[in-house]
Amino acid sequence: MAKRGKLFVLTGPSGAGKGTILEHILKAAPNLFLSVSATTRAPRAGEQEGIHYFFLSREAFEERVKQGDFLEYAEYVGNYYGTLEKPVDERLDEGYDVILEIEVQGAMQIHQKRPDAVLVFVAPPSMEELSRRLYGRGTEDAQERERRLQTAEHEMTYKDSFDYIVTNEVLERAVGDLLAIFRAERCRNNPRQIQGEGNTQC
Amino acid sequence: MAKRGKLFVLTGPSGAGKGTILEHILKAAPNLFLSVSATTRAPRAGEQEGIHYFFLSREAFEERVKQGDFLEYAEYVGNYYGTLEKPVDERLDEGYDVILEIEVQGAMQIHQKRPDAVLVFVAPPSMEELSRRLYGRGTEDAQERERRLQTAEHEMTYKDSFDYIVTNEVLERAVGDLLAIFRAERCRNNPRQIQGEGNTQC
Repeated sequence: MAKRGKLFVLTGPSGAGKGTILEHILKAAPNLFLSVSATTRAPRAGEQEGIHYFFLSREAFEERVKQGDFLEYAEYVGNYYGTLEKPVDERLDEGYDVILEIEVQGAMQIHQKRPDAVLVFVAPPSMEELSRRLYGRGTEDAQERERRLQTAEHEMTYKDSFDYIVTNEVLERAVGDLLAIFRAERCRNNPRQIQGEGNTQC
Repeated sequence: MAKRGKLFVLTGPSGAGKGTILEHILKAAPNLFLSVSATTRAPRAGEQEGIHYFFLSREAFEERVKQGDFLEYAEYVGNYYGTLEKPVDERLDEGYDVILEIEVQGAMQIHQKRPDAVLVFVAPPSMEELSRRLYGRGTEDAQERERRLQTAEHEMTYKDSFDYIVTNEVLERAVGDLLAIFRAERCRNNPRQIQGEGNTQC
């Protein structure tokens, strides 16, 4: 049997740049699988089941929430989004590392449920810079921008719940930090033990 | 005041290659200070106080052991060797990372005393390879080689007490693993907190 992979969670406020960092990381780390989310929203043109999303009816989603099948989930603009635990564990059992890119609230659910997960919080260099980035996205509605900033400020208060904090000031440096975290975690002997069987990984 | 540095400890059995790895690391990480040991052995030609060692009389060494001044110490072939805590903490307070290269027993003392230390165990790829390496050093006495191997085997049983295990099969890879560990640890938010003040370092 292959050595079990590691579960990584990338989170942080909207505008911190976790999506861009993730793109670079997936290119540089071919052994890393991006988890596929489940959703109740309708498939868009070209979206394939099991590749872009697992598409579920609202009833099926709620039933699986009851069954405890989700690692994390949330409702957003009338639809559910979440991460099913089984496909993630299957990949890990095959020996692949798996990464989730999710919102802070979902990451906090994983923080409680999975002590084996490595949780990385991507932070903006400052709230001023975050404000500039959100503005740069062309959100012209000042009220909407204010709401997003408040959400981001609230999310920032959770940052110390995570194992690592990567400040995305210079993209290349943040990507390098993330790649170093993946490499280091493969050598990690978690948690410190007095003696006995550990998981030598590198 | 500068942000406090991190304390790294490099340990592992004799022949695992920690000295060679350390040489490469010190070249690649200019912000990393190698801790200077204290010893009761007489200075050799060219050895300078505070650079190669802190030279102490046996009485002074034992007195400072009593005072609790040592992070770790051990007796070896009739002389004491140890790491004074104060010079290490001074460097850390200045914001530098400090690395100690010490024997496994000394590292175990730090394991107890300093939960802030990052402990890295350098392991040989196998005991057969370790045997070959010790033999390659030209130790012609079979009995002495056997004694060293037994010590190494005993030291290997402690490896799961350490935060990271780096297997030194290919030197360049082991050095890369170590550098990744240093970089990742700078982003580390230790330990996981529910909320509150952490130490964002990257």
